[in-house]
Amino acid sequence: MASVMRATSGSATHDLTETPNARSVNSTAPSSPRIPPLRQNSGTQTPRVRPHATTLNIPGMTRSKVSPDGRIPQRDVAAKLVIVMVGLPARGKSYITKKLQRYLSWQQHESRIFNVGNRRRIATGRKASVHPKLAPEPACLDPPVEAAAILLNGLPRSNGSSAFAEPPGFDLNGRFDREEKRKAQEAEVHEEEEEDQSAQFFDPKNEKAAAMREQVAMDTLDELLDYLLDGGGSVGILDATNSTIARRQRIVDRVKEREPKLGILFIESICTDETLLEANMRLKLSGPDYRDKDPVKSLADFKARVEAYASAYEELGEYEEKRDFQYIQMIDVGRKLIQHRLTGFLSNGIATYLGSFNLSPRQIWITRHGQSVDNELGNLGGNSPLTERGHCYGQALHRFITMKRQEWLIEQKNKLAQASFPPVPGDNTPPYPDSNRELDEKNFCVWTSMLRRSVETAEYFDADDDYDVKNWEMLNELNTGQFEGMTYAEIAKKYPQEYKKRAADKLNYIYPGVGGEGYLQVISRLRDMVREIERITDHVLIVGHRSVCRVLMAYFMDLTREDITDMDVPLGMLYAIEPKPYGIAFHAYRYNEELSTFDELPNYKPQKAARGSV
Amino acid sequence: MASVMRATSGSATHDLTETPNARSVNSTAPSSPRIPPLRQNSGTQTPRVRPHATTLNIPGMTRSKVSPDGRIPQRDVAAKLVIVMVGLPARGKSYITKKLQRYLSWQQHESRIFNVGNRRRIATGRKASVHPKLAPEPACLDPPVEAAAILLNGLPRSNGSSAFAEPPGFDLNGRFDREEKRKAQEAEVHEEEEEDQSAQFFDPKNEKAAAMREQVAMDTLDELLDYLLDGGGSVGILDATNSTIARRQRIVDRVKEREPKLGILFIESICTDETLLEANMRLKLSGPDYRDKDPVKSLADFKARVEAYASAYEELGEYEEKRDFQYIQMIDVGRKLIQHRLTGFLSNGIATYLGSFNLSPRQIWITRHGQSVDNELGNLGGNSPLTERGHCYGQALHRFITMKRQEWLIEQKNKLAQASFPPVPGDNTPPYPDSNRELDEKNFCVWTSMLRRSVETAEYFDADDDYDVKNWEMLNELNTGQFEGMTYAEIAKKYPQEYKKRAADKLNYIYPGVGGEGYLQVISRLRDMVREIERITDHVLIVGHRSVCRVLMAYFMDLTREDITDMDVPLGMLYAIEPKPYGIAFHAYRYNEELSTFDELPNYKPQKAARGSV
Repeated sequence: MASVMRATSGSATHDLTETPNARSVNSTAPSSPRIPPLRQNSGTQTPRVRPHATTLNIPGMTRSKVSPDGRIPQRDVAAKLVIVMVGLPARGKSYITKKLQRYLSWQQHESRIFNVGNRRRIATGRKASVHPKLAPEPACLDPPVEAAAILLNGLPRSNGSSAFAEPPGFDLNGRFDREEKRKAQEAEVHEEEEEDQSAQFFDPKNEKAAAMREQVAMDTLDELLDYLLDGGGSVGILDATNSTIARRQRIVDRVKEREPKLGILFIESICTDETLLEANMRLKLSGPDYRDKDPVKSLADFKARVEAYASAYEELGEYEEKRDFQYIQMIDVGRKLIQHRLTGFLSNGIATYLGSFNLSPRQIWITRHGQSVDNELGNLGGNSPLTERGHCYGQALHRFITMKRQEWLIEQKNKLAQASFPPVPGDNTPPYPDSNRELDEKNFCVWTSMLRRSVETAEYFDADDDYDVKNWEMLNELNTGQFEGMTYAEIAKKYPQEYKKRAADKLNYIYPGVGGEGYLQVISRLRDMVREIERITDHVLIVGHRSVCRVLMAYFMDLTREDITDMDVPLGMLYAIEPKPYGIAFHAYRYNEELSTFDELPNYKPQKAARGSV
Repeated sequence: MASVMRATSGSATHDLTETPNARSVNSTAPSSPRIPPLRQNSGTQTPRVRPHATTLNIPGMTRSKVSPDGRIPQRDVAAKLVIVMVGLPARGKSYITKKLQRYLSWQQHESRIFNVGNRRRIATGRKASVHPKLAPEPACLDPPVEAAAILLNGLPRSNGSSAFAEPPGFDLNGRFDREEKRKAQEAEVHEEEEEDQSAQFFDPKNEKAAAMREQVAMDTLDELLDYLLDGGGSVGILDATNSTIARRQRIVDRVKEREPKLGILFIESICTDETLLEANMRLKLSGPDYRDKDPVKSLADFKARVEAYASAYEELGEYEEKRDFQYIQMIDVGRKLIQHRLTGFLSNGIATYLGSFNLSPRQIWITRHGQSVDNELGNLGGNSPLTERGHCYGQALHRFITMKRQEWLIEQKNKLAQASFPPVPGDNTPPYPDSNRELDEKNFCVWTSMLRRSVETAEYFDADDDYDVKNWEMLNELNTGQFEGMTYAEIAKKYPQEYKKRAADKLNYIYPGVGGEGYLQVISRLRDMVREIERITDHVLIVGHRSVCRVLMAYFMDLTREDITDMDVPLGMLYAIEPKPYGIAFHAYRYNEELSTFDELPNYKPQKAARGSV
């Protein structure tokens, strides 16, 4: 009987008549002896040839043989992605590329940008537009802003460059040094492929230069493929103009040569909006190349450069559709989005993310709630109300935010009034300004969790009609499962194993007990919030908790996994993040309890929390 | 001092110097007396004129003054949506419309379809293609399949028709009667606007008919607006060809006349793929109009009808873009998707959902785990392993599913071999068949939760290389917060208030204690899973828990809120859902423990659980 039951399932019906065992249905004894599961192949009894299903993996939230932790594993090449950027200069390609890489990394996908232009500069021996002290290694050369940051002994950015990583235990100071950042930003604006002083170099008719450009592009692609196939990468982004059908076809051919199962996704940025083009060009014209030059001549030169490309440029379209290539076309950075034949959960997630972009300037504020009763006692979790000191924090917060909101509005309007095109020397008008009316109508959202201490901190905003308060379950503090209500000291004493386990790997640690969470769960639940923040044009103040603040700041500031769990986010700190085309402007303020206000901490850099703290 | 502190926040700095109170920072006493929050307007001290922020609301997961429960409230017209369908006949418009309405309703948005064609039939006095016993009321006439279901005293469908609702307490029997459903499906295929025997009626040059069509369309739109503005609706879908720019502009004008704040979203379905068009036409030709006719002539007649429209058809495009109209264009039902100027979280969520469609035939199976130790004891929640009986269930499940999988494959291949176009009488080839190769390569995913009883139930699939098992946190059973581990009897005894509260409103009830959830949270967490199921082309078996099975079945079977929480989903039941262009094919099987197999329950309709049960 046992051997009959081992036969392929198609003959199952024969088995069942073998044991017509009448018994009470309430008995816990099975009717026939159960055979434990054997490794088998029910379909054909030959080794499986069909590729495994590639379905959604979410780190910490899904588990399978192929992906035990929800991350894209090294061997699952079918789930990996080669992203090929397409677009003329001044089309916002860099902007999109960086944001995308930051988002993917935040979602725990190993992702890196491979910029062809930088590699070409080295190949031609031209001076790279980066900080002079840095000698970039071609193998992991990333856009200048990252390079400059690394120079300052910062933590490894999510965008790779691990060759320069410092050992854990150091702090983040220096990483956001403003002066260096400014220089890096200037360098960055020249980050497009084949950026060069001479417009002739880009003339499509210049064959020698064309052959060299092609070689560098393919070499860069090979590095990208090495990263995916041997370097632990999940997503590689090839950042270049990739402006012709022929070039794109060669890329596809090369990828398929190396590994036919790899996914390929083209992402094109097209600008038809004149205002947007103007704003993009203004950004470029404020860089070092043009610093001491006549603005009018600079604009003409820049336009000539772009013209050299545009004449040979071929948009994604019929050619790619006939061959079922996956692609996303972003027009005017989010006004219109076209997606074609997207397969795989990564591509679909990317399309959703890209569809949420907008360029409206605004402020994003992040803080924890005011002091709660449990805070005073040192207890984890729970749902206690604020202390009187906590309520005072809320009041001070409301006053301060309102003042900063007014300041910002006045500043924006002044800049708008002064803007000129082409920019005169010293003009640093932010690109993409809203109109006056849009600025006046900008709402201010205050988002709290559903826990009392967070809701109560926002009570002054709630009473103020000029703010829109909303409570979000997804902003709740990380659920500590069966340790709810305990102090860390108690946990260390009663459950030393768990305590050690968490200290060893905070990012992946999950609190025991039904409902217990870890950072990966928090990241997963905040995906919708991050997309909503990207989508809206309003200001936002998040009144959160330690873990959610860490996770959100990690997203905006492109911090890696160790940064997330160790970032010092004490009560009373208030962080301001203002998205810019080249990155973010970051300010930190500390609560001054005596004076019921906040003092700016200039040159603040996110700190690692003291060793042994939470 | 108090009056100074009441002044607008801009003068806050003056207040602070009033009380230079030196004190220990560890004291819990605030430095100056806190003024409780007063209702105020920090901005201008005049009543607020700027519209409130309209940000993402998720029922059960967000809370704000405007939307206390996360649902779109009656008064928040800015968050409501008029969806205007656009597309020629045989373009899959109905398919998209129905799925979209089902998805929105499942997400707890009050949504309804307003079909112009049905209303026109009544206006012209033509025989409506519905069951003869039904005399439809124009005010809430919905597509025939719903009408037929109502006739059978079914529960109110999510698509309205509450005029026919039975009082609560009745069961769902009769609602899914197969014979009626089949008739309704046939009637449904003629559900497009202005479906008529005579192609001349649709001749754009026939002015009298045109004027009448216009009138009916505007009347239908008015009903839709009544529903949104006075009838508690959140989303109204205007289902018609809406094939000209002029018509669409009139729709926009009429909406703005009634309420300028309402959102308007155009959704267009375009077919360029000949195979797809053929499949669509086959579907129509298998309906009652053509039942006894010559297939070749029928096809010619149908094509003539469509031609009458096509000559005047104007796709969404430049006209709409110039005016910043929101729109989504679906090309070949998901192959390509274009979105333009989407604003508002509803529109963005809709685009993500529409982008996940595919028409590949496959089976979706849903069942609970096998018997667990806690099941035997009657305890809620927890994470206990299976009993031996539970393990037997898993084994039988694997055998049965494998057998059905083979059956399905053979059946599909036979149909493929027999297909002909135009269809001969009796040919009921499913439209959109995969090729033979695609059928062979179809994977079978088995998704469980992360709880032991669910993971263990899938052990036989896990050992079988022909299945892809994945564990999902989002499939975990609803978290019962502080009642974890208790029995219902214990809860009723120790917490009678909570017990009553839940019985009164199971859908909105949330278990107390940190981590406690309700059905709305379960719906929210399953959004990603539902989209992933829609996206993939593989078979899926969900090994879930009571609440998640209820919620998933509610999605596929378009059940309303009371249905969700009261549906009887006992251990040992196995449900099969096969998506079809007109709806779903539904089968139910019951575990036969003696014979270790499953018996089909013919004509099964989802039941309400017995009164007083969980």
